[in-house]
Amino acid sequence: MSSSAPRRALNISNINPHVKEAQYAVRGELAVRSEEYRAKLAKGDGRDLPFDTVIAANIGNPQQLDQKPITFFRQVASLLENPLLLEHEETFVKNLGYKSDVFERARWLLKEIKSVGAYSQSQGAPGIRESVAKYIERRDDYPASFKDIYLSNGASSGVNTLLHVICASEKTGIMVPIPQYPLYTATLSVLNARCVPYYLDESQAWGTSLDAIRTAYDKAISEGTDVKAIAIINPGNPTGASLPAEDIKAVLEFAASKSLVVIADEVYQTNVFIGSFISFKKALRELQAAHPGKYDSLELASLHSISKGMVGECGHRGGYFELVGFDEEVAQQIYKFISIQLCPPVIGQCIMELMVNPPKEGEPSYELYRKEYDGIFNGLKERAYALYEAFKQMEGVQCDEPQGSMYLFPTITLPPKAVEQAKKEGRSPDEFYCFRMLDATGICVVAGSGFGQKENTLHFRTTFLAPGTEWTGRIVKFHKEFLEEFK
Amino acid sequence: MSSSAPRRALNISNINPHVKEAQYAVRGELAVRSEEYRAKLAKGDGRDLPFDTVIAANIGNPQQLDQKPITFFRQVASLLENPLLLEHEETFVKNLGYKSDVFERARWLLKEIKSVGAYSQSQGAPGIRESVAKYIERRDDYPASFKDIYLSNGASSGVNTLLHVICASEKTGIMVPIPQYPLYTATLSVLNARCVPYYLDESQAWGTSLDAIRTAYDKAISEGTDVKAIAIINPGNPTGASLPAEDIKAVLEFAASKSLVVIADEVYQTNVFIGSFISFKKALRELQAAHPGKYDSLELASLHSISKGMVGECGHRGGYFELVGFDEEVAQQIYKFISIQLCPPVIGQCIMELMVNPPKEGEPSYELYRKEYDGIFNGLKERAYALYEAFKQMEGVQCDEPQGSMYLFPTITLPPKAVEQAKKEGRSPDEFYCFRMLDATGICVVAGSGFGQKENTLHFRTTFLAPGTEWTGRIVKFHKEFLEEFK
Repeated sequence: MSSSAPRRALNISNINPHVKEAQYAVRGELAVRSEEYRAKLAKGDGRDLPFDTVIAANIGNPQQLDQKPITFFRQVASLLENPLLLEHEETFVKNLGYKSDVFERARWLLKEIKSVGAYSQSQGAPGIRESVAKYIERRDDYPASFKDIYLSNGASSGVNTLLHVICASEKTGIMVPIPQYPLYTATLSVLNARCVPYYLDESQAWGTSLDAIRTAYDKAISEGTDVKAIAIINPGNPTGASLPAEDIKAVLEFAASKSLVVIADEVYQTNVFIGSFISFKKALRELQAAHPGKYDSLELASLHSISKGMVGECGHRGGYFELVGFDEEVAQQIYKFISIQLCPPVIGQCIMELMVNPPKEGEPSYELYRKEYDGIFNGLKERAYALYEAFKQMEGVQCDEPQGSMYLFPTITLPPKAVEQAKKEGRSPDEFYCFRMLDATGICVVAGSGFGQKENTLHFRTTFLAPGTEWTGRIVKFHKEFLEEFK
Repeated sequence: MSSSAPRRALNISNINPHVKEAQYAVRGELAVRSEEYRAKLAKGDGRDLPFDTVIAANIGNPQQLDQKPITFFRQVASLLENPLLLEHEETFVKNLGYKSDVFERARWLLKEIKSVGAYSQSQGAPGIRESVAKYIERRDDYPASFKDIYLSNGASSGVNTLLHVICASEKTGIMVPIPQYPLYTATLSVLNARCVPYYLDESQAWGTSLDAIRTAYDKAISEGTDVKAIAIINPGNPTGASLPAEDIKAVLEFAASKSLVVIADEVYQTNVFIGSFISFKKALRELQAAHPGKYDSLELASLHSISKGMVGECGHRGGYFELVGFDEEVAQQIYKFISIQLCPPVIGQCIMELMVNPPKEGEPSYELYRKEYDGIFNGLKERAYALYEAFKQMEGVQCDEPQGSMYLFPTITLPPKAVEQAKKEGRSPDEFYCFRMLDATGICVVAGSGFGQKENTLHFRTTFLAPGTEWTGRIVKFHKEFLEEFK
């Protein structure tokens, strides 16, 4: 056998074609180049760069952009990591600013999990799932059970699980809003299933349009697609839109009429600036109450995360999904599927518990928690509006008033010469614009094409997480110079 | 649309058939029943049960079975979770037993990651990957680069990534040892790819047999399978075998001659009682040095984890894989694939750094670290031998001397009446035996059929993690009674 010529087993032409097809611009070429700039600056050899900091506005990563974690959460986490410290409550209370409820919570969590270093049940520790169920009950005024809660490795792995179980063949279709967070399309590519895109209505502040949904569904059916589910991201990513009650109800009614699973990605449920968040679960329970029997078979999976909100604990990879109305045998298959990867990170599970069950009024840690929470909320809102105001000054840029999530998604109109130049460089015009912005300002955003957009429209998505306003000035200046260059 | 009859979208007959096919006995029906017993006992209503504790010997979960975490690791982790504590070094050193190197390491790690709550790069924080590369260099005496290291969410997600990229069609075959850890077969089921089983040689202490590998390969090729990779678990799971140098070399030579990717699952590399661990990377570099050019195209992916060894930090979900000899374009696809799930848990990445770069001789935390590490190693070895001695007493049970990993995998011979009874209950005989053991003793092990075994042989896998020897007595007593019942 030693005579055969050595060659590699794998090359770009013979690996999994569905992995190759997957696109995930949020961490694509732009992000990679921004990391190279960051490394260059860190090494001190970035003198040739026209900026001295890199700002990762491509991804909702609050703590990377100096958002401080909630003190109570991290105090509890420090004790969970080193339970030997529990014996020194007096030192911590007297000298280190810990309150008694920090110790109480850490002791309770350790009883539930045994150790942050031990695997939990595949679905997550039962006591933590109980806390999540109680949170949902308080939020919605309808019952929830820990048996229906599946803790996950961030909401992303929850989406991955649900799509894996639902996608039965290459004809299976999942309705996905466009623009969308590309986790959905990327996972469907990997699964070799069909994305059934439905367009959000930019003229209606990126709301859902029942007409658009119906048109997309009918087209898919006519093409032989077996449409099984509809995904909704509310508040929206990348759009930032916060859906009104009637949109939610319309989606549920449509899903019920067509026997579609509703996948409600609600990870931005506390990031709402206008109106208030309504969960799909609550809306469903209200529909069920109003029309007994009619909506009993509707299946809803609702996802949440510790990465967003005022928590911003992305690095801890915590999330959950709640199953409503699922067949027990299907739920068992979901359980088996997640078991193969053993369990979600246990400290992330604990942060989830803290997020859904924070200090209550009157408890020792409440005051600081409230102050920090409100401070982060108001800071995000202020920055969203500052960015919105900056966009208003920019020629050819249109942006809706901030409603929620962590993003703005302005429309941009680029001069024909810029579009030509983009073509020459083999890039879409919005991608070309974003690379130019990165090269000129050190600010990394994501081109609209990374999320999907209507033909002949261009956008970019930026987070509004970076502190200060200096960086918005950089964008305004870049945009002006860009237009001058290509006018 | 409201007139259509309500029905669920999903049922057991229309979900993803490949998810349904996947089998993962480690957390299957036995484990679920054992959790029910545990919950019953915790509630205080287990008086009808013939045991008062449940012992989860089904899974390598050391801290669930009272293994203490390494103090240095957790001290650093406590500071990472609450960096405000860094301002109180004096209090920690004077009153809480922390040494100065705990603070140094925590400060260094925080510089590398910014916050445990922030996403890292998809591949993991570069500084932590540098530490992993240095560890590999010390271990093997050959160079390693952080660019080839991919931190992962436990080794399981690394295996998932590699198989996703390699499996290009339903004809793709991956050679998997039998018996094996069922992550491999389960993931191949989900991917609708082919498992090409090769049998380990129980008569040679579960070593690899080149004949068996060749036979399995030839059979697969004759069936039209496109064999792309061979997985090896060393030290073995479930077998506990530690491979000698000649077996490793033979596998590498075979893989090179057939252009197969070698997937070396080396998560038990520090759990070796007999001989010493040889990495596939080192063996490959030696082959390459001895035969210039001949093995340059061989692709190797080597996996490691913080869950095993003397660390046992399963709940933190940390792992890595190193790619050797991979095509750059293929590596980029791997990068993109992992990006879709953003990044591995950051605190798990930090524990990985601590594992590969523990306190060195002369450093303040070294002495305690050494003592704890050796204590755990010796404890595991003692318990392995105690269990081995117990199996010797059991009629019809044969077991190899413990070599490594965390498991023993004895052969069991069951009386014909027991086999009949199993058939009546619709179970395989070994599964039947394991359920009886659980019901009688509260000890949960996994039937050999969950890992694969040669026809007409029966086994079970048990960890030797549970402290004390009382529980081994329970097994001996159960076995005796079981034989009496069915003789």
